Amino acid sequence: MRDDIRSLIEKKQDSILADFFTFLRFPSVSSEPEYKQAVLDCADWVKNSMQKIGFEVEVWHTSGHPVLFGSYQKAGPDKPTLLIYNHYDVQPVDPLNEWHTPPFEPTEKDGEIYARGAQDNKGQCFYVMQALKLLMEMRGKLPINIKWLIEGEEEIGSKGLSEIIPEKTEKLKADYLAIVDVGIPDSKIPSVTLGARGIVTMDLVVTGSRTDMHSGTNGGIAFNPIHALVQLLSSVRDENGRVAIPGFYDSVLEMPLEEKSRLYLEFDEKSYISDIGAKPLGGELGHPPHERAWLRPTLEVNGISGGYAGKGFKTVIPAKANAKISCRLVPNQDPKQIGQLVADYLRRQAPKGVEVDVHVHSGQGKAVRVNPSSKAVEAFAKAFEEVFQSPCRFTMAGGSIPIVAELAEASGAETVLVGLGLSGDRIHAPNEHFGVDRIKKGIQIMAHALDNLA
Amino acid sequence: MRDDIRSLIEKKQDSILADFFTFLRFPSVSSEPEYKQAVLDCADWVKNSMQKIGFEVEVWHTSGHPVLFGSYQKAGPDKPTLLIYNHYDVQPVDPLNEWHTPPFEPTEKDGEIYARGAQDNKGQCFYVMQALKLLMEMRGKLPINIKWLIEGEEEIGSKGLSEIIPEKTEKLKADYLAIVDVGIPDSKIPSVTLGARGIVTMDLVVTGSRTDMHSGTNGGIAFNPIHALVQLLSSVRDENGRVAIPGFYDSVLEMPLEEKSRLYLEFDEKSYISDIGAKPLGGELGHPPHERAWLRPTLEVNGISGGYAGKGFKTVIPAKANAKISCRLVPNQDPKQIGQLVADYLRRQAPKGVEVDVHVHSGQGKAVRVNPSSKAVEAFAKAFEEVFQSPCRFTMAGGSIPIVAELAEASGAETVLVGLGLSGDRIHAPNEHFGVDRIKKGIQIMAHALDNLA
Repeated sequence: MRDDIRSLIEKKQDSILADFFTFLRFPSVSSEPEYKQAVLDCADWVKNSMQKIGFEVEVWHTSGHPVLFGSYQKAGPDKPTLLIYNHYDVQPVDPLNEWHTPPFEPTEKDGEIYARGAQDNKGQCFYVMQALKLLMEMRGKLPINIKWLIEGEEEIGSKGLSEIIPEKTEKLKADYLAIVDVGIPDSKIPSVTLGARGIVTMDLVVTGSRTDMHSGTNGGIAFNPIHALVQLLSSVRDENGRVAIPGFYDSVLEMPLEEKSRLYLEFDEKSYISDIGAKPLGGELGHPPHERAWLRPTLEVNGISGGYAGKGFKTVIPAKANAKISCRLVPNQDPKQIGQLVADYLRRQAPKGVEVDVHVHSGQGKAVRVNPSSKAVEAFAKAFEEVFQSPCRFTMAGGSIPIVAELAEASGAETVLVGLGLSGDRIHAPNEHFGVDRIKKGIQIMAHALDNLA
Repeated sequence: MRDDIRSLIEKKQDSILADFFTFLRFPSVSSEPEYKQAVLDCADWVKNSMQKIGFEVEVWHTSGHPVLFGSYQKAGPDKPTLLIYNHYDVQPVDPLNEWHTPPFEPTEKDGEIYARGAQDNKGQCFYVMQALKLLMEMRGKLPINIKWLIEGEEEIGSKGLSEIIPEKTEKLKADYLAIVDVGIPDSKIPSVTLGARGIVTMDLVVTGSRTDMHSGTNGGIAFNPIHALVQLLSSVRDENGRVAIPGFYDSVLEMPLEEKSRLYLEFDEKSYISDIGAKPLGGELGHPPHERAWLRPTLEVNGISGGYAGKGFKTVIPAKANAKISCRLVPNQDPKQIGQLVADYLRRQAPKGVEVDVHVHSGQGKAVRVNPSSKAVEAFAKAFEEVFQSPCRFTMAGGSIPIVAELAEASGAETVLVGLGLSGDRIHAPNEHFGVDRIKKGIQIMAHALDNLA
């Protein structure tokens, strides 16, 4: 099988990439209302593609963007069912001026395809699509039964999907659940991911007065809300990068040493510095980098604004200053409780003379940990080894796929997280890209894994 | 004379306001290159208006926007010369969505005229213009010789004017210098201003990495520059609002108690709270509010930005975070030295793992103090008393007119700062406004002052 699918991929490479580019051209930015039609158009394209492969597709309407649910049950009742998860929505593109090529005009350069979503998650969704399509072409059927869920709100917290999961538990029942939205530590090192961090996000608004003021006339009298904001935000972490909010780490369940010893924790500082242009000096400095990104919770300020930040200068004391905050969570930390804890702390620490409002968002998710001895992990690890011709390692994801815990529970399936992302792919940033070689590997891995599960 | 000019103003009110609205319609925002033509058009209108009154006008070309210099010498060699200073440029208008009426379509409501520049400084420039025009109409000549300098870069530090002052000292020579760009403490309390604070501004950029990053994958590894920025900015002040940068207050020359006792230091907290919607809790809490705004230096963050601050949420660790900082200065503080001191401190405090760049701007100005016993102060104080029919008080300006010290030196004149601004005028903020009653008073005060100086 290995050689058959490889040569078929090579033969069809041009039409495969043309198809991929069509997918990438939809500006399916889920967070911004002006892209709503593009999101719907993209969903429609995905639905048609699923149907052409042979899936029966339902469009699940939600409070937000539609969820596509495809089902293929022709492998027969004696074969297991795999539920696959992807998403067709993408992150916003700004700062647009830092893109070298337009984010929705995919461009290939040196074997990499540049576009918003090239990796996260259209690229990874696309190699799943191609694996299923080519297997159908080669054999007229798939080796196991497949349920395929592709949502449109992953980048904004999967609210719509989360709301309808309770009514869809019967449809979602499966033996295995593959979340195809993560990565590998290096282009030459295959790995299966044994967990992801949870997340809770919030908006913080500090109000000083009713209106912007002149910083000459009022400087020294009015309390500048930017001053209050920086004071507040700098108080949430100590000099070692540890979150200083009392109780933040209380419920953290440490990973058992034996389990930790199986993880590929090596961190290549040299290549990190050459990728990122900075030393790995964020987070809790007492822990090695991968532990900080995988096994420890964080609090990051993702955005800050206040006053005049444009060209030139404006001597203003603004009425308000704002920040956006996210916490990444580890097992046993409850997103709702941590959100509340952080919000309460910020409100309590409000300097006298300003008003502090915190709004904790509903798009939250618990951390996920996968059973490392499950058949799902085994089948995918074997597929990675077969395609990479190298031993498969076990890693974790620092990012969050908030819906995973809910899908795992509703489906009753053994969960595995897989993907071919690399840390240098610039997802959520300008110039996101994904390798043609990885699309080809992804197609093969998915095909092998399906056989391995049969 | 008093009654003559009052009735002439009432008679001509409609045409006076129509003229004012024309002036306000030019979007002469000096800081933004896209308004360059509007700035030039505005300068042209001002030049023509000066000429129509009877001034010989020179356009002084500078590295930036043009300076208009008008001269009227027909009062004769036995009469003194007064140099008057105004500016025709205005502040930017954002946040535009907070304006209730368009900033460059002046709108009258309840006796107040709403527009960018309505007060600062077009309103104050305009009543000078009307005073000169009506005096010429009434008498065919002015009581003293006048030089009138109207520049176009006050809001961005008067760079162009500052550069050409050394070649223009002969032209600028005068007996008295009136800076018509300040205010009074209350609509019923006349006052002459005995000083203004100096200013130095700078841009601060904190760089964490070469590119924006995903806060899941990299959160805990990468040093978020927003964290470094808030830490840095919160370190510049202590819990009592005092600037914590070593040396910041070292060169401050305290005002002698006897001089301070002449100042109108009363602060109406109730009306401040009702105007601003906040308590006066900014600045150094050990000093009363007006001392903090007039006699003490400040450090204010006028703008902050970094990461994603738009609608929705983006889980990013940005490459950079920025802030704009201004310091208001008091006598004996050198802007260059304080700028250097603050910049050095920020660079020195840079947390390990990020890069801190500080750019101190060239548009700086020393604090100004006026001789309270000069003939200029006396003549204007008397004019204020005559028009308000109430004793004139002495105040200070918290704001800065960076060019004043240079103009005072070049002209060799006795300086006085006057104006009819009120703290609730929202200059530098949305919904700037100025009262029709104050335009009328301003015309009379200028006419009386000229007579008092004759």
